[in-house]
Amino acid sequence: MAENFSGTDEMKRAADIAAGRIKADVVLKNARYLDVFNARLCEGDIALCGGLIAGIGSYEGEKEYDFSGKVVLPGLIDSHMHIESTQLSPEEFASLAVPRGTTLVIADPHEIVNVCGLAGADYMSRAAARTPLDVRLMLPSCVPATPFETSGAVIDSKEIAKAFRGKRFFGLGEMMNYPAVAAGDEEVLAKIYAAHSTGRITDGHAPEMSGKALNSYIVSGVRTDHECATAAEAEEKVSRGMYVLLREGSASHDLKNLLPAVNERNFRRFALCTDDRHADGLAAEGHIDHVLRMAVKYGLKGELAAVMCTLNAAECYGLKGKGAIAPGYDADLAVFDDVQNFNCVAVFKDGRLVAEDGKPLFSGRLRLPAAVKNTVKVAPVSADTFTIKLNGTRARVIGLQEGTLVTKNLVEEVTSRNGDVVLEGTDLLRLAVVERHFASGRAGLGLVKGYGLKNGAAATTVSHDSHNIIVVGDDKQAMADAVEELKRIGGGMTLVHGGKIMSVPLDIAGLMSSAPAEKHVRLSAELYKAAYEAGVNRGIEAFMTLSFLALAVIPELRLTDRGLFDVNAFGFTPIDAQ
Amino acid sequence: MAENFSGTDEMKRAADIAAGRIKADVVLKNARYLDVFNARLCEGDIALCGGLIAGIGSYEGEKEYDFSGKVVLPGLIDSHMHIESTQLSPEEFASLAVPRGTTLVIADPHEIVNVCGLAGADYMSRAAARTPLDVRLMLPSCVPATPFETSGAVIDSKEIAKAFRGKRFFGLGEMMNYPAVAAGDEEVLAKIYAAHSTGRITDGHAPEMSGKALNSYIVSGVRTDHECATAAEAEEKVSRGMYVLLREGSASHDLKNLLPAVNERNFRRFALCTDDRHADGLAAEGHIDHVLRMAVKYGLKGELAAVMCTLNAAECYGLKGKGAIAPGYDADLAVFDDVQNFNCVAVFKDGRLVAEDGKPLFSGRLRLPAAVKNTVKVAPVSADTFTIKLNGTRARVIGLQEGTLVTKNLVEEVTSRNGDVVLEGTDLLRLAVVERHFASGRAGLGLVKGYGLKNGAAATTVSHDSHNIIVVGDDKQAMADAVEELKRIGGGMTLVHGGKIMSVPLDIAGLMSSAPAEKHVRLSAELYKAAYEAGVNRGIEAFMTLSFLALAVIPELRLTDRGLFDVNAFGFTPIDAQ
Repeated sequence: MAENFSGTDEMKRAADIAAGRIKADVVLKNARYLDVFNARLCEGDIALCGGLIAGIGSYEGEKEYDFSGKVVLPGLIDSHMHIESTQLSPEEFASLAVPRGTTLVIADPHEIVNVCGLAGADYMSRAAARTPLDVRLMLPSCVPATPFETSGAVIDSKEIAKAFRGKRFFGLGEMMNYPAVAAGDEEVLAKIYAAHSTGRITDGHAPEMSGKALNSYIVSGVRTDHECATAAEAEEKVSRGMYVLLREGSASHDLKNLLPAVNERNFRRFALCTDDRHADGLAAEGHIDHVLRMAVKYGLKGELAAVMCTLNAAECYGLKGKGAIAPGYDADLAVFDDVQNFNCVAVFKDGRLVAEDGKPLFSGRLRLPAAVKNTVKVAPVSADTFTIKLNGTRARVIGLQEGTLVTKNLVEEVTSRNGDVVLEGTDLLRLAVVERHFASGRAGLGLVKGYGLKNGAAATTVSHDSHNIIVVGDDKQAMADAVEELKRIGGGMTLVHGGKIMSVPLDIAGLMSSAPAEKHVRLSAELYKAAYEAGVNRGIEAFMTLSFLALAVIPELRLTDRGLFDVNAFGFTPIDAQ
Repeated sequence: MAENFSGTDEMKRAADIAAGRIKADVVLKNARYLDVFNARLCEGDIALCGGLIAGIGSYEGEKEYDFSGKVVLPGLIDSHMHIESTQLSPEEFASLAVPRGTTLVIADPHEIVNVCGLAGADYMSRAAARTPLDVRLMLPSCVPATPFETSGAVIDSKEIAKAFRGKRFFGLGEMMNYPAVAAGDEEVLAKIYAAHSTGRITDGHAPEMSGKALNSYIVSGVRTDHECATAAEAEEKVSRGMYVLLREGSASHDLKNLLPAVNERNFRRFALCTDDRHADGLAAEGHIDHVLRMAVKYGLKGELAAVMCTLNAAECYGLKGKGAIAPGYDADLAVFDDVQNFNCVAVFKDGRLVAEDGKPLFSGRLRLPAAVKNTVKVAPVSADTFTIKLNGTRARVIGLQEGTLVTKNLVEEVTSRNGDVVLEGTDLLRLAVVERHFASGRAGLGLVKGYGLKNGAAATTVSHDSHNIIVVGDDKQAMADAVEELKRIGGGMTLVHGGKIMSVPLDIAGLMSSAPAEKHVRLSAELYKAAYEAGVNRGIEAFMTLSFLALAVIPELRLTDRGLFDVNAFGFTPIDAQ
């Protein structure tokens, strides 16, 4: 950004290049470009001076790229995402996202901070700095997400105020505890105040919030929302001053439902995000380029969609110098075939070519600090750990449903023998959440219906939001073996079946793989395949569904390391039912 | 702005009001309001918490205002103006502008700083602080405007950098020396750099600038322009990332010509300004409310026009908490009959009612510091001061033209007698610019054609941009008397005719009147009337035209205290012509 000039010498050189008095460093020639301010395509060479755009017109450069027939866009911005959801390292994520045209992401390291505390965020930040991807880290606002579970760290308002005295965090991450904000809870308000008082933005997360409750959430200073489900909800939130981030992630597909809220008079208040995007979709379909394609498919003009993930995102987050192709803006540029298919052919970051024809022109050796390695700390487990002792014959059971993360709070007849439940001949499985941050030995036990695995166990260290080990199975020893396997490999997903153990390591905090993206995608696909072959219900996501069974904010019944949680009653509940 | 909460107690009270748990301080009831984010009118009560908007919906308040049938807008913003051009004190300006719905102006005190230096800006700032009007002061970038004249102060890049270490200036005022910026002049770039490096915006002024020259102006960091003459010019500037300020002032009426550049896709990049607005027009027609009426008259939808001078202006200038009616925004509100006629019926600033039915509910005693009083410092003058000695019979003459400030560089046959020109029987008059800041005795002399005064002299201390005394006449003694009169009254406009002297004092820096607006408007009208009766050509503005004859950047021929200036040749020229 022109505002970042180090002195008048730099300004003069930029002015000289812009005026055509000296050659530009780089010129992108013969392409059309997106004029984001008029939301239209224009013609003109783009002349660069170092990392800046100096001018648009007819220019000569020391280095010239011929992009005849192509369209140059500002680098794409993902306005809200969790890199951990890709299960890739930041470096591998960048290697997939940057060649798709993404040059900046607003990333909330909520998952890794729940495991490793702020050291996890530091790792993300340092890893991202080894790539051309501009990662603006939000400080997770809700660690732990609920008081009903054991996370690896607790970040309270004092910790947040302290962290905001430094520069590593760009803003306050999605404030998921929206009922507390609306209720005026002082500890939660203090977190937002810490952001306010240091000039930082606070991201929102307010599903179905409306009317006066929404007013009270917004007056406290929350500025964005990415949880709208309907066009009416989006329209109300925009009307109240929020930026609405249209989400098209791996599991959440809100874009289509929300587009009816968008028109030319209000499109400035919308940006795009993926929130949670898995490695496989990222590799096969893309990142924000995919969201753009979907937007066009659903009827939005490509130019308007592109302005949303460039200028609008930059305005929403106060990203000076980002989001436009104009003199003085940063030379973060993505070259596409057109603004319908958004096939990315080249990417420039800070004036340097960093990707071409879908391939990254950068690579870096991973560096994993101790803080994010070997994070699976569990006390020894045995088959007995998974013994479930009922007082009667009626048990509360988590009922899985296809196509939704919402579970049913069921009551089933269950027989017992020798102080343990007998599940043979039923479609019930044992479920456990084993605390894995402090090796406390604490485990919550429950029953689940509809998962479908036979003669084995499945387990993962990705278990929102505290990421304890969640393990399911009909074989107590297999469950113990699965936990031991996850401890051995430093976290991941594992299937114990027929005497064999098959695993995908997520050795970075138990959340992300240090493997190349391609390998991780392949291993994951093989593991899912094996899980379905072992009997897992094909109507659910073998491991992802498991990952959400500990999230005590989604109805109706959940399990944490502290026990069964009735979300509707918002309290723990015994497994014994009346 | 929510971001300005002093602590969580304030946040909690705002959240409580927003949620309806406690009564609001003030509620504006039963009106529609402008939802700037969707650019449409909506219904809902507006609940205030102190100086903030807490919520929109159905609310009860300790104090309630019934605005049935009315439309509430965010307080209007003038994105670029010079308060001095009103010839009123900041207090009197506010008393006219605020009841019209204006709650914030971006004001460049370019004129008073040319007279009094930064002490002049301090005065403006302190005076404005005694009103409810939010005046954001820009630091004048071009003092003096040209090196060809003597101003009361010189503000170089070092002075600017020093001033920006404090907080009194919001940004850098219009960078009129656009050729120097485009040329990469280091001193001029250093001024902009001083703004950059302290996070401040730089306003532009770039008439007819285009193509690569425009690129180089913008890459240096200039962000706005209010000098567009055509829609094509506006469109190019918007395309290059500038905010274009649509100007509708007393003399410059660009709005109509520029509106064809505006559409729903790009209207976010336009704001409104008056630049120079005189007291009479302000009193009779209005301020930004008048610009809104004109915009509607020229075919723009009222809602879009209103968004330009609210949300857009706030975004352009980074005015957090301004420009919208939504939770957490400042309670600066203007209530209108409708969005066609924009008749303002009430104004709230920071949650307090400050104007009603066109009348201010505030008043303050003027306080004039020594620095802005008695600023007319001239060496003694006599009739002889205005003697013009030609070497030959051909003289260069400033030719006035009706309806434009552009003059002709004429050559006329002029006879002389006793070492002085003889003007009887011609339509030529003597013109002089008498240096008035340092009593140097320096005076530039020239001849003017087309002014039309007979048997007297007219003079003013408003003389762009250095504001020396400019005096015109056919009677040398009357000219001397006029200068002495302006010295006596501390600046103003004066007419010496038929042995009588008639004056309008501009006792604040020789630019503004300490009188009430109404009185100043009446006196000015009387003086203009007398001037026309004394023979001044009715096709020109008796005193305003005079005020621009020293401005050495408008073609073709000008006069400063240092002599005749040929603007096209960009250099001084002798009065003797070939």
